[in-house]
Amino acid sequence: MDNKQVTLSVDLLKERQKCTFNTLELTYLLDGGPERTKERRERESYFLDDPELKSSIPTEYLSHKEKYEEAIRVSCLIFRKVLHLQEEGKVGIENFQEILGGQLGSSLIKDGNPLALHYVMYIPTLMGQGTYQQQAEWIQKAWNCTMIGTYAQTELGHGTFIRGLETTATYDQETEEFIINSPTLTSYKWWPGGLGQTANYAIVVAQLNTLGKCYGIHPFIVQLRDEETHQPLPGVKIGEIGCKMGMNTTNNGYLGFENVRIPRNQMLMKNNKVLKDGTYVESPSSKLTYGTMMFVRVVLVQDVANYLKKAVTIAVRYSCVRRQSQPKPDEPEPQIIDYVTQQHKLFPIISTYFAFHYCAEWLWDMYNNVNSQLEAGQLSQLPELHALACCLKAVSTSDCSAGVETCRLACGGHGYMTSSNFPSTYGLVTAMCTYEGENTVLLLQTARYLMKSWQNKVEGIQLTPTVLYLQSAQASNIVYNRNIDWIITVMEQVAAGKVELAWTHMNERIKKGLGAEDAWNHTSIELAACAEAHCRAFVVRTFYSEIMRLKYTISEPLRIVLLQLLDLYGVTTALKCLGDLLRFSGTTGSDIENLQQWLEELLSAIRPNAVSIVDSFDIRDEVLSSALGAYDGNVYERLFAEATKSPLNAEPVNKSFRQHLKPFLKSQL
Amino acid sequence: MDNKQVTLSVDLLKERQKCTFNTLELTYLLDGGPERTKERRERESYFLDDPELKSSIPTEYLSHKEKYEEAIRVSCLIFRKVLHLQEEGKVGIENFQEILGGQLGSSLIKDGNPLALHYVMYIPTLMGQGTYQQQAEWIQKAWNCTMIGTYAQTELGHGTFIRGLETTATYDQETEEFIINSPTLTSYKWWPGGLGQTANYAIVVAQLNTLGKCYGIHPFIVQLRDEETHQPLPGVKIGEIGCKMGMNTTNNGYLGFENVRIPRNQMLMKNNKVLKDGTYVESPSSKLTYGTMMFVRVVLVQDVANYLKKAVTIAVRYSCVRRQSQPKPDEPEPQIIDYVTQQHKLFPIISTYFAFHYCAEWLWDMYNNVNSQLEAGQLSQLPELHALACCLKAVSTSDCSAGVETCRLACGGHGYMTSSNFPSTYGLVTAMCTYEGENTVLLLQTARYLMKSWQNKVEGIQLTPTVLYLQSAQASNIVYNRNIDWIITVMEQVAAGKVELAWTHMNERIKKGLGAEDAWNHTSIELAACAEAHCRAFVVRTFYSEIMRLKYTISEPLRIVLLQLLDLYGVTTALKCLGDLLRFSGTTGSDIENLQQWLEELLSAIRPNAVSIVDSFDIRDEVLSSALGAYDGNVYERLFAEATKSPLNAEPVNKSFRQHLKPFLKSQL
Repeated sequence: MDNKQVTLSVDLLKERQKCTFNTLELTYLLDGGPERTKERRERESYFLDDPELKSSIPTEYLSHKEKYEEAIRVSCLIFRKVLHLQEEGKVGIENFQEILGGQLGSSLIKDGNPLALHYVMYIPTLMGQGTYQQQAEWIQKAWNCTMIGTYAQTELGHGTFIRGLETTATYDQETEEFIINSPTLTSYKWWPGGLGQTANYAIVVAQLNTLGKCYGIHPFIVQLRDEETHQPLPGVKIGEIGCKMGMNTTNNGYLGFENVRIPRNQMLMKNNKVLKDGTYVESPSSKLTYGTMMFVRVVLVQDVANYLKKAVTIAVRYSCVRRQSQPKPDEPEPQIIDYVTQQHKLFPIISTYFAFHYCAEWLWDMYNNVNSQLEAGQLSQLPELHALACCLKAVSTSDCSAGVETCRLACGGHGYMTSSNFPSTYGLVTAMCTYEGENTVLLLQTARYLMKSWQNKVEGIQLTPTVLYLQSAQASNIVYNRNIDWIITVMEQVAAGKVELAWTHMNERIKKGLGAEDAWNHTSIELAACAEAHCRAFVVRTFYSEIMRLKYTISEPLRIVLLQLLDLYGVTTALKCLGDLLRFSGTTGSDIENLQQWLEELLSAIRPNAVSIVDSFDIRDEVLSSALGAYDGNVYERLFAEATKSPLNAEPVNKSFRQHLKPFLKSQL
Repeated sequence: MDNKQVTLSVDLLKERQKCTFNTLELTYLLDGGPERTKERRERESYFLDDPELKSSIPTEYLSHKEKYEEAIRVSCLIFRKVLHLQEEGKVGIENFQEILGGQLGSSLIKDGNPLALHYVMYIPTLMGQGTYQQQAEWIQKAWNCTMIGTYAQTELGHGTFIRGLETTATYDQETEEFIINSPTLTSYKWWPGGLGQTANYAIVVAQLNTLGKCYGIHPFIVQLRDEETHQPLPGVKIGEIGCKMGMNTTNNGYLGFENVRIPRNQMLMKNNKVLKDGTYVESPSSKLTYGTMMFVRVVLVQDVANYLKKAVTIAVRYSCVRRQSQPKPDEPEPQIIDYVTQQHKLFPIISTYFAFHYCAEWLWDMYNNVNSQLEAGQLSQLPELHALACCLKAVSTSDCSAGVETCRLACGGHGYMTSSNFPSTYGLVTAMCTYEGENTVLLLQTARYLMKSWQNKVEGIQLTPTVLYLQSAQASNIVYNRNIDWIITVMEQVAAGKVELAWTHMNERIKKGLGAEDAWNHTSIELAACAEAHCRAFVVRTFYSEIMRLKYTISEPLRIVLLQLLDLYGVTTALKCLGDLLRFSGTTGSDIENLQQWLEELLSAIRPNAVSIVDSFDIRDEVLSSALGAYDGNVYERLFAEATKSPLNAEPVNKSFRQHLKPFLKSQL
């Protein structure tokens, strides 16, 4: 650890002495090797040790406008440093998420980087959807940051259903320009990050009209503000959308157009084209854009797991310092982590982090495989990847949001303080349940794949690897034994049972005369539920496979810890869907009593290593940004030190006393 | 409704035309009669129609300090108006929650009233724990608001376990004074509302020492600030604790003492006394303070239900205006409320509001009964009330928090906007899971009562009414039928089964040689779970009994609606604990398929009345404070209007462009 505090909490010291494994070995394992750990630490130092990047007072005390202005100051500095790293070849596209969002980014600017979409959406879209000529013209400017772009798709009245977007881009063959318009209030772009006061360019998604016909949505490069004065260009109505639950410095904006003209070659034409005379030329392989669309969802799974890792680190350390009650007279108040209910809140969350970490790695590998296949014109694995990315995004963001809140609530009142860093972490994480695909919508996407797969099974068609278990799961009747294999088998039986039930109920409705889409809607509660069950079985199985794969490359003491975490994840997952276990597998009441016992034994087995496991995450104090979670455990000193930073505490008597309170109190005499 | 908007959303108009019952009848029913509705509306008008109470710009854009100053301005005006109503006899202690917290209060000051604890804790404690002489001396001043008080109990290091408080009050018989001290950092008072910069007096809870002996915690009246200058008095170290997840204008403070002396008669001595010579005289009935301690928890259940009522009103109306996707080609995008998954998110929340509303009424009646018994020296019902208040507080705050978030997420991205009012509602509601008893701690309190009750059952001792079902629940074997009676029976079987299991496991551990407290701790996951199951059975039963009681006093159309909501509450409650149903009652897999069908039928039965039910809650637009939930349904116009209020939108180019962004962009050329 980089933290060299003079005094360490005795409680945490004792915890660390109990450790049974090598924490550095786990750090290397999670980073992907000692070299990767070293690089990450160097990147962190490069940013975190720069005093210019620190704000003079905690930003939460500033006004909304001041917060934005400070975020611009810091984000420009971050971008300068990113460019510097690029020049030195020390940073690639795979590091942007870390620096701009995720772990490190959210500690540099707590409430969101207003420039982030430039790297996260603007440049990738130029690269993915621009022709080579367009890339030559635009990418250099974008990479060098002589422009700042954003990505404007969502509208005030249209989110999930992008075919319903209303913004129009109408081709004028006279001038060889597109005319962009916002025909209604609901067609205003709404939400793009950095759009409010920051970006001067945007990719705008609009309905393409040419020669009197609408060809659906297409992307266009639109300049929004003058490069010198930053004034909005004529016809561009632009501003920010106001305060939000979190991410208040991302400068999400609105955008309306009134006859804004752009040259024809600012339509991104890698796929479809509009020729000079207005002729529309469709791409033979429009599915090619599909791969890049999935990128963000794939990255999200790792990102959301990283937030959970921060939250649980804070909660575990705090729980070892905080003491409460006196169950036994004459003994000191115990550390709250020794209450089994507290262990039951926190330890499963540690294991959840590992589960999603390994799923994210798995998904990333599959994404890269499918992408190379796509470039070779192979589309066959795309639907399977899509189905998995959808449900994993939904389940991971929803579980991690809940997990962050569980960690916060497990820290009692102090978790409610901004200085705990739980509130802003929750603000960032819960937003992920909505953006890049609303979770219920995504589960229903996965359900479509599952329904097709079940149909294939019925028709004897070969199933794809991730749903292969549907073939055999129900057939196998397995007797309970205290083993993760048993859990995986019954979770797959549950998933298969729920898929079959949804399929049956939907088809019964169709047989009764309901149209396919109405039958779908009426069965949708069960459809979403079966997609979730499928996902949960996948997560347990993937966690298991990854640990089995690692089994012989890691030391015995670490293996024991990882197997405990795997078992704990399996047991808590199973206990959360008891009803399903009893319905769809041969599980009995006494099996469940045994599962509960197993759970209690695992909690107590993990207890001595709890602090060391979160220490292995190797998260610097600056990244945790939490008075409750720092490495030294000096919780109360830090809480107090943070409180003294409040501008209200800078003067003994606030002016509102003279203005309002005193006149009121005295008027009653 | 008081809302006389010119244009009403056509969608909402159509919804209202479908209504099958008289919304005014339901409004009266929930208020407790037409007279109560009239009074409430008058109170609301008295506050909401006063233009002085409105802030000039939405407070979320202000700095932390400015927010506080504006809250003081408004709260002084509110208190003036409250005093005026008191003079006219139009307001009693039962209305304070409404005006200072809950429904109306949170619309007047969105993030918490910094003066609220004066009425909510300071005055009630003076009344409950002061002698008649002390009341004569202090109450008048407090009622007239020539002082502002708060209640300082929780310390930086001590919350739940109040016996562990460290602040000391040591009696000095020479001067007949108590000397108040904060011996450690962890002994600093931390959290009291209004303590930071606002209150000039506090009830301080401290360890009483006299004649060399400690007698445990007692309450003292301590002056904190000079009445003229508001400067902290010598030895008083005071300030606010900083930003929080919500409630940022409640001015929660910290407080340390260094040899602060107060006269002997400022110890509140209704119960225990310290005589002039330092002799400690214990009250014969120290349990008398117990009743007042319960008051806040009892009130909380209604309060949290009211927040849920606001949230679901917003979400239901928005879901009728928002349209999305196009399941059937050539048809318009459907209202999102027509998606069954959306109904499944929202309609159970409507029913949850009713369930907790009726439980809160029941609890309030029991509280008043027990309180009159207490005054007659009867303590027998106190433990039963305590057990119920604990689990109802825990389950209602936890369900309502989850419900508010479900409503928010069901509104997609727009729910994340501050202008939706979900974020600040969640901030207020989730805080209730922690304050006035952390929820897990409270469930374990209820579990203690259940363990004793089961022991009584085993020993043949008569059980109290609310646990009487433990006697017989398991014995009865009941065949599934689609009826709320069946649900109540099986929910009680579940609760009884879980109580027995926890009791058995705890006793097995004791038999194996574990001490009682360790056995308790090791069984605590199951103990908390059995308390929750007990509570859920109680809520369904109470909702049922109240509807049965009303059955013949309300019209047939309204009765149908209420019975649908009751059934829906029962069915969703049962479906949430499927595993328990299968384990502890005779429920079978096919019963569950039938339950799921019943659920789907109820959702579709409630669908036409959804908007009218929330309309009946009769919540003024100002109280909803939501761009998404207003009566007129003009969602997009309001979202846009709110966005334009952002100070960032007041100028076309923010100064940070010249300061930071332009130099950065140009430096790369």
